[in-house]
Amino acid sequence: MASPPVITLLTDFGLSDAYVGIMKGVMLGICPAARLVDLTHDIPPQGIIPGALVLRNAVRFFPAGTTHLAVVDPGVGSARDPIAIVTERGVLVGPDNGLLHPAALAMGVREVRRLERTDLFRQPVSHTFHGRDIFAPVAAHLAAGWPPHELGSLLPAPRPLVLPAPRCEPGRVDGEVMYIDRFGNLITNIPATALAGFPTPEVSVSIRGVRIAPIVAAYAAVPEGSLLAIIGSWGVLEVAVRDGSAAEHLAADIGTAVTVTAD
Amino acid sequence: MASPPVITLLTDFGLSDAYVGIMKGVMLGICPAARLVDLTHDIPPQGIIPGALVLRNAVRFFPAGTTHLAVVDPGVGSARDPIAIVTERGVLVGPDNGLLHPAALAMGVREVRRLERTDLFRQPVSHTFHGRDIFAPVAAHLAAGWPPHELGSLLPAPRPLVLPAPRCEPGRVDGEVMYIDRFGNLITNIPATALAGFPTPEVSVSIRGVRIAPIVAAYAAVPEGSLLAIIGSWGVLEVAVRDGSAAEHLAADIGTAVTVTAD
Amino acid sequence: MASPPVITLLTDFGLSDAYVGIMKGVMLGICPAARLVDLTHDIPPQGIIPGALVLRNAVRFFPAGTTHLAVVDPGVGSARDPIAIVTERGVLVGPDNGLLHPAALAMGVREVRRLERTDLFRQPVSHTFHGRDIFAPVAAHLAAGWPPHELGSLLPAPRPLVLPAPRCEPGRVDGEVMYIDRFGNLITNIPATALAGFPTPEVSVSIRGVRIAPIVAAYAAVPEGSLLAIIGSWGVLEVAVRDGSAAEHLAADIGTAVTVTAD
Repeated sequence: MASPPVITLLTDFGLSDAYVGIMKGVMLGICPAARLVDLTHDIPPQGIIPGALVLRNAVRFFPAGTTHLAVVDPGVGSARDPIAIVTERGVLVGPDNGLLHPAALAMGVREVRRLERTDLFRQPVSHTFHGRDIFAPVAAHLAAGWPPHELGSLLPAPRPLVLPAPRCEPGRVDGEVMYIDRFGNLITNIPATALAGFPTPEVSVSIRGVRIAPIVAAYAAVPEGSLLAIIGSWGVLEVAVRDGSAAEHLAADIGTAVTVTAD
Repeated sequence: MASPPVITLLTDFGLSDAYVGIMKGVMLGICPAARLVDLTHDIPPQGIIPGALVLRNAVRFFPAGTTHLAVVDPGVGSARDPIAIVTERGVLVGPDNGLLHPAALAMGVREVRRLERTDLFRQPVSHTFHGRDIFAPVAAHLAAGWPPHELGSLLPAPRPLVLPAPRCEPGRVDGEVMYIDRFGNLITNIPATALAGFPTPEVSVSIRGVRIAPIVAAYAAVPEGSLLAIIGSWGVLEVAVRDGSAAEHLAADIGTAVTVTAD
Repeated sequence: MASPPVITLLTDFGLSDAYVGIMKGVMLGICPAARLVDLTHDIPPQGIIPGALVLRNAVRFFPAGTTHLAVVDPGVGSARDPIAIVTERGVLVGPDNGLLHPAALAMGVREVRRLERTDLFRQPVSHTFHGRDIFAPVAAHLAAGWPPHELGSLLPAPRPLVLPAPRCEPGRVDGEVMYIDRFGNLITNIPATALAGFPTPEVSVSIRGVRIAPIVAAYAAVPEGSLLAIIGSWGVLEVAVRDGSAAEHLAADIGTAVTVTAD
């Protein structure tokens, strides 16, 4: 038996209302076999950048052919396009506002389609909830086998999202905190690969006037309550406190500068 | 292949305990094929009215034949009846305390059954968790094909829930905020249809001394941070702030008066 | 058709990041038919004891053969073993830090296996997210039919978790609050069976200087807002406030002493 199609959901809708459940109802009406997996619905309201980061980090852990539905859509009802991005590993569906762009790059873009087949939408289409009326139905139709090239006209590329990039020079990388997770871990924009070319394996991480060295391999390398720097599960440099919150410990926030230097 | 049966869940149990997961375990033991969809579990504790509103709004987006399990049950262990309501579009299961009534009306009531088949219940039945011991097992048996007319004796009607109705006169509707969602949008009890008979399409919405006009078609019709009035995804008048919270902006709450007048 | 395999998830990861969704993606890649049920992800960070209590209470409501994945893992990356415990009713998978122990005892331990088959893991295995790289893949392989005795070497027993036990003497039981749920109900460590041998059925419950009697059968036995003592859905003595929070009413916390005496 073929594996049932998988659809993931990422939104800023929260779980205290039934908006997410309603999208699932719409999708099960179109693709009853779909397996629906929540990535998260706690993206801060209108938080395109954190939504894009979480989506990009999550997609690579899903089976090939997964459909990813993502809705963080401050421009709902305005001129931004609804799109689907066909990639090497699956399809992304959502508003063309940058949200899908980093994940699409990571997955290998094949083509971008503007969603124009209104017969696939839920009618009437509201002006305030395209997640329910456009994106969920299209994602479900795709999961049920609808050919992506029949969704609408080809677009040259998805709207890009400009994320702050680290500045690299010999023996030094200047980056910043790009995401803070539930544990208070500070996820930076410094990938493990940026540290590969360092002259020595010994490096220091500086953040808010505190110097952390070396980069350790596991939380357990330091005592409870201690600061540490580590290449974490996102594949980037993280600053953490063992069994504690680095965000609280350092009063750090998104955008806080992080510098790595060769010792 | 027939579509797998769908069961939705709505409760005030929250997700920080395992109470919802336990109900799902009970249901999968009875109906392994069931697709379980959370509407929300963040109804305020004992909040029959918000629970009923969210349920009524959500049911129409689910496939015909869906079983809706709803448990907001301040009277658990008391004399209120456990019931199932068979409707034109699916079955509602829960306590007969008004919670199911608005959704049942919207779905078209066929018959109401008192849950009396104790052989369908989980034994022993606790006095504190009928969601686990009565409602979840009955919902799962229904999803697995148990005939509703063999659940117990016929009741004349579900216990009604009296919701505040808007007062309509020519050129004026007086309503109120009935629900506030995660975005701070103020969902009123004024349906789009109540505005259909207005002498002019130009109307004003007044709330807490602020006058909003006109009713716009999309959030994007106003600048970021501005108040707006809109017929939202619930099909009723909403007061919102674009990319912000109208509840905070206006210090509005459930019950706050909202008046629509012809200009 | 055989019932699809069920996998439950319990973690301290929260739902605001995509860590739980990522584990589900990994599992569906290995066992596409698996039914994934969240117990809760709101265990306090590093809260092995509340995690163990919630897990122990929940497992008995799931079908035989269920795989339970539990990750509360302050020692990730350190020397604690990753294990699977085969029981009479299903398999538990997680870190060997006490988390699985109470549930395993309740389910009847058959054998404990150290997870050594690195070919079942996601590669490369990170040092910070064994939930994704070790526990989720192994749970999914087990759900898909992998024989537990081929997971790794036999361990004599899981690491025990020492939970505070009530002290029982004729006509008196001294216990404590072991868990507080979303409603503010105080779940104690005093099982219903501990009260079975009392000389009289009339008993009093004392907590923070307040005496509550008798133990009632349902919340509805007392007026709204009143304190009550009850054998709750966990099968143990609970102190609650009808339609209110006993934790707030009594300023009680985990560890607060609770005494039952014969009247």
